[in-house]
Amino acid sequence: MRYLTAGESHGPQLTTIIEGLPSQLPLTAELINKELKRRQGGHGRGRRMQIETDTVEILSGVRHGSTLGSPVALVVTNDDWKHWTKIMGAEPLEEDINPEDIKRQISRPRPGHADLVGGMKYGHRDLRNVLERSSARETTVRVAVGAVAKAFLAELGISIVSHVTEIGGIIANPESTAGKSVAEIRAIIEEDACYCADSEASAEMVEAIDEAKKAGDSIGGVVEVIVEGLPAGIGSYVHYDRKLDAKLASAMLSINAFKGVEFGLGFEMAHRKGSEVHDEIIWSEEDGYTRSSNRLGGLEGGMTTGMPIVVRGVMKPIPTLYKPLQSVDIETKEPFKASVERSDSCAVPAASVVAEHAIAWEIANAIMEHFHSDQLPQLKEQLAAHKQYTKEF
Amino acid sequence: MRYLTAGESHGPQLTTIIEGLPSQLPLTAELINKELKRRQGGHGRGRRMQIETDTVEILSGVRHGSTLGSPVALVVTNDDWKHWTKIMGAEPLEEDINPEDIKRQISRPRPGHADLVGGMKYGHRDLRNVLERSSARETTVRVAVGAVAKAFLAELGISIVSHVTEIGGIIANPESTAGKSVAEIRAIIEEDACYCADSEASAEMVEAIDEAKKAGDSIGGVVEVIVEGLPAGIGSYVHYDRKLDAKLASAMLSINAFKGVEFGLGFEMAHRKGSEVHDEIIWSEEDGYTRSSNRLGGLEGGMTTGMPIVVRGVMKPIPTLYKPLQSVDIETKEPFKASVERSDSCAVPAASVVAEHAIAWEIANAIMEHFHSDQLPQLKEQLAAHKQYTKEF
Amino acid sequence: MRYLTAGESHGPQLTTIIEGLPSQLPLTAELINKELKRRQGGHGRGRRMQIETDTVEILSGVRHGSTLGSPVALVVTNDDWKHWTKIMGAEPLEEDINPEDIKRQISRPRPGHADLVGGMKYGHRDLRNVLERSSARETTVRVAVGAVAKAFLAELGISIVSHVTEIGGIIANPESTAGKSVAEIRAIIEEDACYCADSEASAEMVEAIDEAKKAGDSIGGVVEVIVEGLPAGIGSYVHYDRKLDAKLASAMLSINAFKGVEFGLGFEMAHRKGSEVHDEIIWSEEDGYTRSSNRLGGLEGGMTTGMPIVVRGVMKPIPTLYKPLQSVDIETKEPFKASVERSDSCAVPAASVVAEHAIAWEIANAIMEHFHSDQLPQLKEQLAAHKQYTKEF
Amino acid sequence: MRYLTAGESHGPQLTTIIEGLPSQLPLTAELINKELKRRQGGHGRGRRMQIETDTVEILSGVRHGSTLGSPVALVVTNDDWKHWTKIMGAEPLEEDINPEDIKRQISRPRPGHADLVGGMKYGHRDLRNVLERSSARETTVRVAVGAVAKAFLAELGISIVSHVTEIGGIIANPESTAGKSVAEIRAIIEEDACYCADSEASAEMVEAIDEAKKAGDSIGGVVEVIVEGLPAGIGSYVHYDRKLDAKLASAMLSINAFKGVEFGLGFEMAHRKGSEVHDEIIWSEEDGYTRSSNRLGGLEGGMTTGMPIVVRGVMKPIPTLYKPLQSVDIETKEPFKASVERSDSCAVPAASVVAEHAIAWEIANAIMEHFHSDQLPQLKEQLAAHKQYTKEF
Repeated sequence: MRYLTAGESHGPQLTTIIEGLPSQLPLTAELINKELKRRQGGHGRGRRMQIETDTVEILSGVRHGSTLGSPVALVVTNDDWKHWTKIMGAEPLEEDINPEDIKRQISRPRPGHADLVGGMKYGHRDLRNVLERSSARETTVRVAVGAVAKAFLAELGISIVSHVTEIGGIIANPESTAGKSVAEIRAIIEEDACYCADSEASAEMVEAIDEAKKAGDSIGGVVEVIVEGLPAGIGSYVHYDRKLDAKLASAMLSINAFKGVEFGLGFEMAHRKGSEVHDEIIWSEEDGYTRSSNRLGGLEGGMTTGMPIVVRGVMKPIPTLYKPLQSVDIETKEPFKASVERSDSCAVPAASVVAEHAIAWEIANAIMEHFHSDQLPQLKEQLAAHKQYTKEF
Repeated sequence: MRYLTAGESHGPQLTTIIEGLPSQLPLTAELINKELKRRQGGHGRGRRMQIETDTVEILSGVRHGSTLGSPVALVVTNDDWKHWTKIMGAEPLEEDINPEDIKRQISRPRPGHADLVGGMKYGHRDLRNVLERSSARETTVRVAVGAVAKAFLAELGISIVSHVTEIGGIIANPESTAGKSVAEIRAIIEEDACYCADSEASAEMVEAIDEAKKAGDSIGGVVEVIVEGLPAGIGSYVHYDRKLDAKLASAMLSINAFKGVEFGLGFEMAHRKGSEVHDEIIWSEEDGYTRSSNRLGGLEGGMTTGMPIVVRGVMKPIPTLYKPLQSVDIETKEPFKASVERSDSCAVPAASVVAEHAIAWEIANAIMEHFHSDQLPQLKEQLAAHKQYTKEF
Repeated sequence: MRYLTAGESHGPQLTTIIEGLPSQLPLTAELINKELKRRQGGHGRGRRMQIETDTVEILSGVRHGSTLGSPVALVVTNDDWKHWTKIMGAEPLEEDINPEDIKRQISRPRPGHADLVGGMKYGHRDLRNVLERSSARETTVRVAVGAVAKAFLAELGISIVSHVTEIGGIIANPESTAGKSVAEIRAIIEEDACYCADSEASAEMVEAIDEAKKAGDSIGGVVEVIVEGLPAGIGSYVHYDRKLDAKLASAMLSINAFKGVEFGLGFEMAHRKGSEVHDEIIWSEEDGYTRSSNRLGGLEGGMTTGMPIVVRGVMKPIPTLYKPLQSVDIETKEPFKASVERSDSCAVPAASVVAEHAIAWEIANAIMEHFHSDQLPQLKEQLAAHKQYTKEF
Repeated sequence: MRYLTAGESHGPQLTTIIEGLPSQLPLTAELINKELKRRQGGHGRGRRMQIETDTVEILSGVRHGSTLGSPVALVVTNDDWKHWTKIMGAEPLEEDINPEDIKRQISRPRPGHADLVGGMKYGHRDLRNVLERSSARETTVRVAVGAVAKAFLAELGISIVSHVTEIGGIIANPESTAGKSVAEIRAIIEEDACYCADSEASAEMVEAIDEAKKAGDSIGGVVEVIVEGLPAGIGSYVHYDRKLDAKLASAMLSINAFKGVEFGLGFEMAHRKGSEVHDEIIWSEEDGYTRSSNRLGGLEGGMTTGMPIVVRGVMKPIPTLYKPLQSVDIETKEPFKASVERSDSCAVPAASVVAEHAIAWEIANAIMEHFHSDQLPQLKEQLAAHKQYTKEF
């Protein structure tokens, strides 16, 4: 499977086309909209998020609630477009218009954003031409794509959830999720302001976010994605670029502002002995092969083991601050204090939703590569047969 | 550019083909062999590493010391092949031979390796058919590929080094590399038993490795790769799968036993305020645009900023222990204590060499995608012009 | 560069996303619409083509008439959608609706179309689910994509035209285009009912089309695409999958109803001696290296020679006939005479427009891979330098 | 699946790595060597072909006669390498050697070859650096790769053959293959000097080849590849780049000296009425859906119909002639008569073997994409189930 996205932050719409989905997958806009709403939630978002409610239209590839096998086009329109038609319009400017009047030109790159380097790369002296695309606004359609992937995974009995494990130094107690299923964790975090499973930590996170905001500052954090119900053997060890963990790492780092990823115990493994890291293999008639622990996060040799995948990503604090950073005007070359375009002080809860959907896509894609059926019902049968086979191996 | 590798651990040879290199790149086997030797070094390796000295043959794509633009084939032969011809030979077994006599069949999967799941995936009840390929032996040719990439980068004034920052909980003092160039760091670590820039920490690491060995255990660690001399604007923010950090993350996680990756401050960013994370932009007539710090590790918006790339990976302790782990025989379904096939107690120094070369390849590839010239001299000119352009932007 | 298309024939819209265009390419909807109109013209089209006038909207990636470097989304809406909302809607059917009333279910596959095999592949017993996507309606957006490519090529001084050389056995006189430039040929064929450069042959073609229509039959033909102004050295001989002719052949055969492709003299080469096939190399101070003829169609060793590319494709007669073909109802397994869904008796002129645009895309893509600049002005400079270099070689 | 090839015509060896094969495929060097020998046969080959007998070594990915699922490396060594070590060696020239003595430098590009443009592209003033790679010598390993694909297809009951239908204007009678199975055609052509099924035409072809040789000229021809035993539904109509005919066309045109491709009736369709082109669909309890004819060559909507695939390619006469062509020395810019490097006057029979193997690879790859199983036995079961399903559809 593959997908492309298009759209600028203040353009008329965000668009995505997904190619390669199986036929007969039940799919509705409602199901996707639910996830778009979650992406807009979480404590710490600015005003814009509260005004807009993103909704998706399905414009091809689905008929009467079911996929056709042909490409699926999804669109999220910008409700605010009428205020931006002149500034962001595709048509050439009329000759009698003074560009200064309408272009809202930006010559001051914000540190930590794509502004400066993006301007250099594409030759844009109006940095709006960069930030309109590099904005995290694009993650809206990545969530839409991931919602389709999740619908697919759900049909196969594979479930996925993300939760926030750290914000601005406040760390959730690992016990808050230990031994809980994906469904149980989801039930908890959907009620939580920070999408965190530890309500005490969450309360502190809310305070930290509010304090950062007051100080004109921002904070980042860590999100954890858990995938449950996987068959063993997805991914492969035979060639370096077929390892599933490499693909998941790439997906996590492709999210705006993410700067690291780890599986299972992750960086903690640098402090531990081998005998305290690996997961012993056990077998029983009822369950087939399982592991006595899941410290490796569900992957061995670049393949799923059948244990849940556990992967975490770290998000840097949003670089747009009220407390401004030093930068340089590209026209005058004069230093200035970087301006504020938006006002989230913490986007970690929202980013956890993006991470969940980015990972869901990669998992769905890996499943499709493994079994590759054109039709969902056949794929389900293949998966069931494969699970039986690995149990009896 | 693209490459494929082939070869089993005890097969006749490892082979790689690299397609897409520019012509007129100076290249010799000697230059590659130097890196292969570094991969075989470092404190903590078992006996096998000390016997063998890997050397490469260049079998196509190079004539009289210079690339032709056609695919480059590299081969590393297995000096010990004569002892394995019957066990690992490609030809069918003769009928009057008892397979038991020569197959060295393995039915006992080691936890933490690809053995069990790989066997399930490809239907191998003799798990040797898995471990011969999933072995880190394959990283030999990945280093060879990376050595070619490094030769290319060197021509462009881009240098790269890796060093060990942590082994088994012993952490090198960051001051040991602070402010040092790639060349300076290389000079230090090439003399160090653990490829670590902090000699005191290194001494402790040696002790930790020896202790782990004595205890029949193993330890992991963290390696850092630094790339210097990069132009700004490599990678892109316009589509999620074109972000350079996503590609580097994938490269790092594609290395055997690596379980996490981070850029710049990495996971530390979850504890910091935005004002303490981002790098302010400064400008001067002589240097053009630079940053007052490099906390983001040389990447913004998925693109190089021109500052050094700083990326770290964590390696788990080697799962093959003298102190054995519980597993299950796939034939009898009886539990057993996992056997020892090799005896490294710590492979982090060697893995740092692999990481350096895996990252070098991705950087070289990104440069080739950006400038794409078929001839090295033209590419050099383009790069110089681009550097001038970004300076004056 | 890459693109995806989405959309069913009677769905709400056709959508495409193009990723990888350089920035600063002038682009307007008007320019694309001109080509969409040409695709709808030509003698022999049915009523549908005359009612609809396809027009495109540019919904991202372009600002004030110029590309941004970010993905470009193009949409062609279906003016007739209001009559199809129930039949083709994405939302699930309401429970109290009788599917028979609105689904216009099709159980009778037409020979020569994707109907039967597509139904098998995706498990559709309603074959409308297949033909809505397999319809040549999709070529509308492929023309839109090609129009963007042509705008890009025009900036580089590369021009392209297609003309019809044969319809239903009537063959245009090759002298009608011999020695003419792309611009000259375009001037002629734009005035011609069959997009043919030989007006006498064209008149006969019109008659043949009308006769076929009267007889309830259909006819096919051959189209020729010519590309002029190319630099030498695009494509490569170093690996089989990098040959430009292989890519152009793939593009031509990816067009609905095309069944063959040939370059230069093409199949005629099977009857000729080598001394009558190859193009001798000549050199002059003013022109550098050229050829005394262009029998190979502008390609040697999978690379452009700098001479015009000449490539032809053959289109089969449209399989939907008034004079019906024998088929089988998939529900009853009873034989029937295949029904008529549309009424074109010859689509070769329209298909010539599609071929022109499919080839334009491949050429543009090959140019972008060769020079790869993020910005059009830089790419222009590189191309000019390359042309000078090859002249002086 | 994917593969890379490497190697120069007079270098030490040709190498290929195939990645993505299923495990448990029986594979021996003997089976591949048989095809390499066929490639070296056929009337009209020069002396070189008669001296050398290419043989392959399997150097990884196969153990005891069966694939492991890991990459397969194949090598064909150059028996004549000892005479070329100085001329083609990878190591830098020793300083005291006069390059003129050993380089066999070529400054005279042959028309119809990659020489001139390849030299421009990669900056080689010694055109040997081009022709060593652009030579059809590389097709040796493409045949080896195709032989592996054929072994795979044979396990699935899919057979493939190529035969020569035209050489230098002599056309084989289509009746010579009409109604014959792949096995029957193979039995005939393996005994024929021109790999042609019409013995009378073949005798004339031999004469034509001999005459061309005497005249210092060369002749081309047409080859036809037939694939039998395919399931329906391989390939897809849902996206233009997933059409199987587009991929097969690309494979055919990627072969040295091929200039056109056509399916079924091919270019003949431009002269026929729709009612004489399409294949009517019939159904019976025993056979399921079949067609009353196969004029479309086994493909509809970019997918296999289950009927045999019939695809033809045209090969131009070999451009290296005793009767020389005019060209220009790149050093002196003086015109000259192009020199002869090899002496085949017709390579069409050999090329038919290459075409068979290039097509076999694409078919095998399409099958693997459709069913994608890691293990051959599972894939066989899936294919059988799919055939039953399409029969009952």
